[in-house]
Amino acid sequence: MKLYYTPNTCALASHIALEKAGARYEAVRIDFSKNEQRSAEYLRVNPKGRVPALVTDRGVLTETPAILAFIAQSYPAAQLAPIDDPFEFAKAQSFNSYLCSTVHVAHAHRMRGYRWADDPAAIAAMKKKVPQAVGDCFALIESEMLQGPWVMGASFSICDIYLFTLAQWLEVDGVDLDRLPKVVEHRRRLSIDPIVVKTIAAEMSA
Amino acid sequence: MKLYYTPNTCALASHIALEKAGARYEAVRIDFSKNEQRSAEYLRVNPKGRVPALVTDRGVLTETPAILAFIAQSYPAAQLAPIDDPFEFAKAQSFNSYLCSTVHVAHAHRMRGYRWADDPAAIAAMKKKVPQAVGDCFALIESEMLQGPWVMGASFSICDIYLFTLAQWLEVDGVDLDRLPKVVEHRRRLSIDPIVVKTIAAEMSA
Repeated sequence: MKLYYTPNTCALASHIALEKAGARYEAVRIDFSKNEQRSAEYLRVNPKGRVPALVTDRGVLTETPAILAFIAQSYPAAQLAPIDDPFEFAKAQSFNSYLCSTVHVAHAHRMRGYRWADDPAAIAAMKKKVPQAVGDCFALIESEMLQGPWVMGASFSICDIYLFTLAQWLEVDGVDLDRLPKVVEHRRRLSIDPIVVKTIAAEMSA
Repeated sequence: MKLYYTPNTCALASHIALEKAGARYEAVRIDFSKNEQRSAEYLRVNPKGRVPALVTDRGVLTETPAILAFIAQSYPAAQLAPIDDPFEFAKAQSFNSYLCSTVHVAHAHRMRGYRWADDPAAIAAMKKKVPQAVGDCFALIESEMLQGPWVMGASFSICDIYLFTLAQWLEVDGVDLDRLPKVVEHRRRLSIDPIVVKTIAAEMSA
């Protein structure tokens, strides 16, 4: 398999999950500063022009929640999701879906406002609201979703990897961390996980 | 089970899927015009204050992609997703994830711009870009994702139900339908499916 990623993006979640699963894969860095995600070569891999993309021998997968569930199902021994219980699996998927459709989207209004408006003043207005919009999302995670010690309770899962990944951006998004003691403690625990440390170091040094 | 829905929202996808699965459930209408989604009673069901929410005997599920996969896995005889093949299942999940995180979000900037900016001019600027932003998403679905006759190819799935649901909004979003012959034909075929007709009629008459 081949994982296309860019450092400091949500692709980190798929990258960590592959490492946690013990998968054999190659990581390929896409350089946003050179606009490589819009190159003809990369658009043949992923016509969306985004990361992550996971190339398998059966085809290409995109979208973090789908890739994470695929890794969990393909490497059951790693126990990365409650794949044998449709209700618990749906709870995990619900959490990941919230991260991709609401939390990541709130964050994206800081740097990618041009996706949703052309007027520079409008793009600036979106940027201004990011601390509140992202902060409100994480406050809901703090109060309603993060069961503790892990997102799904006693068992570590793909939800923890994904939450950790998006929680990297809390400071740059201007979110008040004092509202989020559980999220911050969760992030701290994962930040010293040897596989997480190794994966981030690999992304930064590539 | 109990499905909380509002007509003309993405909750229609979960509603159709429950009907296709032959599930026993009760549909409960939440009236946005009375702001019922923010009532204390409903927030106890779904703290996000959104629809859909599916109440099961084991707890509440939210987020359309998670609910759709749960229905497909819970009613395997209905064959609503390739649940026994992790790669094909991931392809279906990737499609649904794109719908929730990109297509639905592009659409939401028409009526819910206040989520991402406070300035009325910025909210107007977002609204103005919706025909292009939503149109570009559906153009990618048309050219890269909708295999035909169904999204996943020969087999009907939860992806078709979800795509049909979001395609209800193409006209109000001002999207040029001439760009989307396959999407429009897909929508037409589903719009005369007896279960789809019955589900929409039930939502409208409740």
